[in-house]
Amino acid sequence: MRFITLEGIDGSGKSTQAKFLEEYLLERGRRVVLTEEPGWGKLGKIVKKTILKRRDIDLDPYAELCLFCADRAQHVRDFIMPNLKEGVTVVCDRYYDSTVAYQGFGRGLDLDIVSRMAEASTLGIKPDMTFFLSFPPEKALSRLREREKNSEKSDKIDEEPLEVHGRIAEGYAKISERNPSRIKLIDAAAAPEDVHRRIVSHLV
Amino acid sequence: MRFITLEGIDGSGKSTQAKFLEEYLLERGRRVVLTEEPGWGKLGKIVKKTILKRRDIDLDPYAELCLFCADRAQHVRDFIMPNLKEGVTVVCDRYYDSTVAYQGFGRGLDLDIVSRMAEASTLGIKPDMTFFLSFPPEKALSRLREREKNSEKSDKIDEEPLEVHGRIAEGYAKISERNPSRIKLIDAAAAPEDVHRRIVSHLV
Repeated sequence: MRFITLEGIDGSGKSTQAKFLEEYLLERGRRVVLTEEPGWGKLGKIVKKTILKRRDIDLDPYAELCLFCADRAQHVRDFIMPNLKEGVTVVCDRYYDSTVAYQGFGRGLDLDIVSRMAEASTLGIKPDMTFFLSFPPEKALSRLREREKNSEKSDKIDEEPLEVHGRIAEGYAKISERNPSRIKLIDAAAAPEDVHRRIVSHLV
Repeated sequence: MRFITLEGIDGSGKSTQAKFLEEYLLERGRRVVLTEEPGWGKLGKIVKKTILKRRDIDLDPYAELCLFCADRAQHVRDFIMPNLKEGVTVVCDRYYDSTVAYQGFGRGLDLDIVSRMAEASTLGIKPDMTFFLSFPPEKALSRLREREKNSEKSDKIDEEPLEVHGRIAEGYAKISERNPSRIKLIDAAAAPEDVHRRIVSHLV
């Protein structure tokens, strides 16, 4: 179990669970790196800023898809792949399922082209296990609104209407059904410690 | 004949011919816009700078492909498509054949995925006619070297070895063979005025 990804809508608790998982693995003597998408490295910073912060650019959805895929390819080649080769466990907050869920189901782009591009952007590196944190979109959205209040810099994606978040959540459910051996469905509405216990139960 | 693209390796005289063509059409009372890829608009500027100028980023070839496609989708949606709808003729220096020639044949990426992505990046807007300026790679390269001497800012792509330029030229030849009705093969080794005459002979 070398490459583990976490998936789910924003506000579902992925980042918290990724940190819990990193600590859990470190305590058991594993070498672990925790990373996320988008935003790794110099290209990632350009891509993330362009997609999430540049309110003066009304991005075409296909252009947005391409930017996410560019970010991933660079991340895989320069960070994920070298770490896996060194025997380090990689825990990644979002990976190619995010592209299919958000750009395919959320934005309604052609699922065939989105899936092919997302797959190509992995450069052949598939996760050994993926945890999909299932969480009600309306609750996730109110969490995000709460976060926003306490922060001046919200991301453009968080401002999408509830309907879009609902489509993304449905997309994730479909992706999970299609990949039952890789993707573990985790009910993320419980307390963070309970969610963590459910995740690590799959690792023993 | 509303949407015309020019293709060929760097140094084959595309920009000069694009300007000649614009003048020719304007003189005949047509409303014309001249544009190029990559680099249109705010996203285009980010993409172009990232690909051609950021020497501190060793771009993964698939990431590079994605960036070119992002640039095109935005260009098509926000500039090419609105102009065509208004009845304006669009002359574009490089379009999706460039992606297939450079990223597919030049970089050796999977031709099927490159072609699908390049096609998707057009958002369905195909050129009515494409002029492929055929020019010997070794001559093009010495032109570029000459330009470089007179300019401090060369592009990363111009520094590729002759072998890569050769593969790109061969790729263009194959793309032209496969699209005989759309792509007009123009021998661009003649004097610029003669090349121009050959181009416009296809427009009457």
